[in-house]
Amino acid sequence: MKLATVLANREVVPGVVDGDYLLDLRVLTSDLGQVMSLATTAEGRAEIASATDGAKAFALADVEYLPPILQPRRILCVGTNYRAHVAESDRVIEAPEHPMIFTRFPSSLVGHGQPIERPPVSTKFDYEGELAIVIGRASRYAKRSDALGVIAGYSCLMDGTLRDYQRHTSQFIPGKNFERSGSWGPWIVTADEVGDPYGLTLTTTLDGEEMQSAATTQLIFDIEAIVTYCSTFTTLEPGDVIATGTPGGVGYAQDPPRGLTPGAEISVSVPGVGTLTNPVIDESRKLDN
Amino acid sequence: MKLATVLANREVVPGVVDGDYLLDLRVLTSDLGQVMSLATTAEGRAEIASATDGAKAFALADVEYLPPILQPRRILCVGTNYRAHVAESDRVIEAPEHPMIFTRFPSSLVGHGQPIERPPVSTKFDYEGELAIVIGRASRYAKRSDALGVIAGYSCLMDGTLRDYQRHTSQFIPGKNFERSGSWGPWIVTADEVGDPYGLTLTTTLDGEEMQSAATTQLIFDIEAIVTYCSTFTTLEPGDVIATGTPGGVGYAQDPPRGLTPGAEISVSVPGVGTLTNPVIDESRKLDN
Repeated sequence: MKLATVLANREVVPGVVDGDYLLDLRVLTSDLGQVMSLATTAEGRAEIASATDGAKAFALADVEYLPPILQPRRILCVGTNYRAHVAESDRVIEAPEHPMIFTRFPSSLVGHGQPIERPPVSTKFDYEGELAIVIGRASRYAKRSDALGVIAGYSCLMDGTLRDYQRHTSQFIPGKNFERSGSWGPWIVTADEVGDPYGLTLTTTLDGEEMQSAATTQLIFDIEAIVTYCSTFTTLEPGDVIATGTPGGVGYAQDPPRGLTPGAEISVSVPGVGTLTNPVIDESRKLDN
Repeated sequence: MKLATVLANREVVPGVVDGDYLLDLRVLTSDLGQVMSLATTAEGRAEIASATDGAKAFALADVEYLPPILQPRRILCVGTNYRAHVAESDRVIEAPEHPMIFTRFPSSLVGHGQPIERPPVSTKFDYEGELAIVIGRASRYAKRSDALGVIAGYSCLMDGTLRDYQRHTSQFIPGKNFERSGSWGPWIVTADEVGDPYGLTLTTTLDGEEMQSAATTQLIFDIEAIVTYCSTFTTLEPGDVIATGTPGGVGYAQDPPRGLTPGAEISVSVPGVGTLTNPVIDESRKLDN
């Protein structure tokens, strides 16, 4: 089952993707975060499916995708979690003992197809393609053997980064949180439909050219390790999102370096999960106070 | 004007502190984050005050304080922002060019008087007393001259930290986000009542013994610099919270090192703003999945 949130006729519509259509799920919820618990079990998915009986269908060609969940309570991200990316990062991390965790605010991520924005204060705008997991069951101190069971589904995430702001200090937050500088979607594919999360490959293309490619078997900290570690300090809740890290091949490590410039198109593809594509524009909105 | 949120008769009650009482503000809002914009202007504060005419009054002695805003969209924190704390941190930061920014999730902070919890996985539980600012007006790319004007008010914040988890990698997030490991409150004091934010002093006491003491004039990045920098990457919105950093004197830098252990009482006091006091207990809740 694929769950998406779109803007249709100026209304926010959460729904179930059915071929070329989105089936309106508003009879059940206004926020997909609230059905992630249902999405985690066969019974729950049947309940979601039955809620779309006779529902209005929107042609996907006619709608604007929004982030699948508009305001996740937690967006956790894992840094330097593929060996090839560690190597290109100039970071001395031989065998890291713990996952490197940082966060993004929801306002830093747009949906599939929406433009991502390069801010006027930086030209060091870089891509990072990632597989994201979405939590379906509340969990604290998860055991490794239970970790996959708390996952409702998977999505693609583009962890757009302003490299200069990322390196202003030791802490990544500023460079990872520019408004509308990243994206996720197009939808959440439920875990049952994805099957083995270690049978996935991830590819990032910039203007159609392949920049990153890796198998999820190459993760340094695997999905169970990430869930277990994050649930040690915070209570993971349905609708929380965790980006699992980016492979080698980011823009700054290219020779010559590449970046996201207005007019470019960045795409993150995980066969079996989806393809997330965004055009890049210069940020135009400016909120003066 | 002092604004607090309390639990009274099992109901969440936002209100205005009036002497020993809280005047119920539920006729106006269920969430103080939604009145931070009003709290920023004299007209708005008059509107808040008039909403308490004839309101139910709860004796503060009989209620449980909650965080003044239950779910801030953004809780930003500044690291190493007093010289004495930089010195004790073993960090080589001669003259930092940019504020060090990390984040906390709302679930990591409790209200005044509520117990803060030491997790079973760490004994390296440390205090950091801080002055917090609460945003009252949406702001992006704030000019320095406008920065103080976007502030609705001030509060005390205890940025409780699990030092081992803070240092697992370069990123502070895990050590700064254990559930109920920090606190803020007791209330938000509006900026008009605080007056000059550089006329404040901050003191942290552990079991009554003074551990930290500093004047806000000693901030490396002052309040305008913090607001300006944070608004460069994210749109500050009413109800967002920014903790401005901790002075020297944290527990791990004491000889011998001190920490937060069950039975202790930690208190952060800023005369003119308030005194935030919390007992420390061992975490008891355990959510198995």
